Amino acid sequence: MQDFTFDWKTKIIFGKKSEEKVFDEIKKYSKILVHYGSDRIVRSGLYGKIIKSLGNGFDIIELPGVKPNARLSLVREGIEICQKNKADFILAIGGGSVIDSAKAIAMGAYYSGDVWDLMEGADGLGRVIPLGAVVTLSGAGSETSQYTVITNEEKKLKKGFGSDRIRPRFAILNPELTYTVPPYHTACGIVDILSHMLERYFGQVDHPDINDIFIETSCKAVMDNALILNRDPKNYVARSEVMWISTIAQNDFMGLGRKSDFEMHKIEHELSAFYDISHGAGLAVVMPAWMEYVFSNDKKRFNKLFASVLEGYGPKEGNILEGIEELKNFFKKINMPVSLSEMDITDEKFEEIAGRCTDSGKIGKTMSLGHQDIINILNLAR
Amino acid sequence: MQDFTFDWKTKIIFGKKSEEKVFDEIKKYSKILVHYGSDRIVRSGLYGKIIKSLGNGFDIIELPGVKPNARLSLVREGIEICQKNKADFILAIGGGSVIDSAKAIAMGAYYSGDVWDLMEGADGLGRVIPLGAVVTLSGAGSETSQYTVITNEEKKLKKGFGSDRIRPRFAILNPELTYTVPPYHTACGIVDILSHMLERYFGQVDHPDINDIFIETSCKAVMDNALILNRDPKNYVARSEVMWISTIAQNDFMGLGRKSDFEMHKIEHELSAFYDISHGAGLAVVMPAWMEYVFSNDKKRFNKLFASVLEGYGPKEGNILEGIEELKNFFKKINMPVSLSEMDITDEKFEEIAGRCTDSGKIGKTMSLGHQDIINILNLAR
Repeated sequence: MQDFTFDWKTKIIFGKKSEEKVFDEIKKYSKILVHYGSDRIVRSGLYGKIIKSLGNGFDIIELPGVKPNARLSLVREGIEICQKNKADFILAIGGGSVIDSAKAIAMGAYYSGDVWDLMEGADGLGRVIPLGAVVTLSGAGSETSQYTVITNEEKKLKKGFGSDRIRPRFAILNPELTYTVPPYHTACGIVDILSHMLERYFGQVDHPDINDIFIETSCKAVMDNALILNRDPKNYVARSEVMWISTIAQNDFMGLGRKSDFEMHKIEHELSAFYDISHGAGLAVVMPAWMEYVFSNDKKRFNKLFASVLEGYGPKEGNILEGIEELKNFFKKINMPVSLSEMDITDEKFEEIAGRCTDSGKIGKTMSLGHQDIINILNLAR
Repeated sequence: MQDFTFDWKTKIIFGKKSEEKVFDEIKKYSKILVHYGSDRIVRSGLYGKIIKSLGNGFDIIELPGVKPNARLSLVREGIEICQKNKADFILAIGGGSVIDSAKAIAMGAYYSGDVWDLMEGADGLGRVIPLGAVVTLSGAGSETSQYTVITNEEKKLKKGFGSDRIRPRFAILNPELTYTVPPYHTACGIVDILSHMLERYFGQVDHPDINDIFIETSCKAVMDNALILNRDPKNYVARSEVMWISTIAQNDFMGLGRKSDFEMHKIEHELSAFYDISHGAGLAVVMPAWMEYVFSNDKKRFNKLFASVLEGYGPKEGNILEGIEELKNFFKKINMPVSLSEMDITDEKFEEIAGRCTDSGKIGKTMSLGHQDIINILNLAR
């Protein structure tokens, strides 16, 4: 294990009806920005239920409209609203995009410059508005993580930022709230969870023993439960397992003592910045292609992983290409794409994507990837 | 999974030389009670190193003398010192007993009555002095847990208490600080870690899927690393794995979504209140006896556990008694006792111990244990 510092920070409130407990967590605040996406949560009654449970003691300012791949324009709007209304807490109700958007608003509200500068790496993040999350979709793990990913739609850029300051104060996790998530988005979440663990798994550090085991067994569990949800979307046990693993997959618990640079995410972020595809679907395409391209650099690790997560994968040293094919088969079973062509993406932007992935130099731990390597991976993904 | 609330709270600073980072964590405080046990940490130079790293900006009040099975008398002394000196932070340097003692002092400092009343369940815990820990012995996991266990030496009573308020603010985990722990105490810690996980494992709840897997794989990892430390006490990897698992075994991460009543601990606490034996050694004796007495009530769970943690345990449904014997063999390999007679304990106090264990009614989840059951278990442990 490498040295590490870890501050979990987020209080977890897990279980049935846990969304009724928001009041206790925010009672010391007064002006609340409630941030969410489509009116699905209004129609389902969840929004009304939460607002009613808060009583009359708060000034509630509402900002809906978050879309998948959270947009900078709405973040800027949120910052202006918070400043104008002196909001002292942000309540995010939704999945990763909503929570990411809330985090960026929280960052920008007290910042003197433009929030995009922070996303691009500028120093100067000081005070942030505290936030909390009611999760309605498992996958991103943003409810306990220190990360936010925002899309600048004008520049067609997607940037990630991380700081312990933007970890939510609490996360409300009621598996029942995910019962009505459409199968496609449930599956996108599953791929995102797997990728969060695997980016860490391939982080290349000596002796990551117990975290290796946690990742391997959690990947297996997520895949098993994904297949259960395929046929039984209201299975409480499966929704619970997926929701909990989603949370610990991205708050860095699984990555303690190792380093990673999230190269699969980097490639997918550039893809979805151009094409506005679902992050999980993009990852389902990028992941097998990346594996195929780099596996010969660390056969031992690929064999260890596949032996743990793939039923019937060859006893000691399997054929890794067969393992990758089996992973693709799993993605197909949950109706994820496994090629760019399925999403009508051609090689038109490959050069530009590769350029952006490597604009600060090579990326990747298992293999150091330059401009041409990214193009080769994208070609394998066609 | 059952509904749960979980607040990790403690910031983890893990790795080599991490004890040099105490200053950053306490710089906003001014009057520090430094609490520790024997002068081992003074002789090793650790104490001097930490004090030196703090510089001259603090009032340091020193309270050494914590013994294994932390004593109420010293806790009372610590409370008086804190009140007199207006201590605003407690720094515990040591293992579980030191940190438990620090927690009890933190509880008592602002409490109007006697701290023992709180330990016995009285309401009224309000403000506590914040505390942090530098860990020198892996096992109790007190550095991130909400629990403290204190021995009232006059009454020969040992009581546990839990509250999120007494979770340390930070835990400094440098595996190298445990290099010089004598083999016997390393082994006691190993048994304590296993017991923290197994008390939760046998907590009887439907569908504890992923946490079951975390416990099974962590028990296996702890046992494997214990054998490595047996022959190579300065193995950094093994010390790291044990230190980290020790921490997550008792801060409730492994117990989320289930209930447990820690019946093995209860029996051991009464034993060590009378005989002042090491907690881990007591558990090594109680655990197999408890297993032997209750296993027929949940053969499925015992088989699941042993199949995961014991090398060569029979393929599907093993002979559970053989598994228990194998666990005893492991304890013997790390030089732990497996019978009361090895610690010169006779049946003299069995009645009294059984009475105390059941003074608030029956205990235990796998089997509900009354007075005579406790005596039967103790007899199996002879």
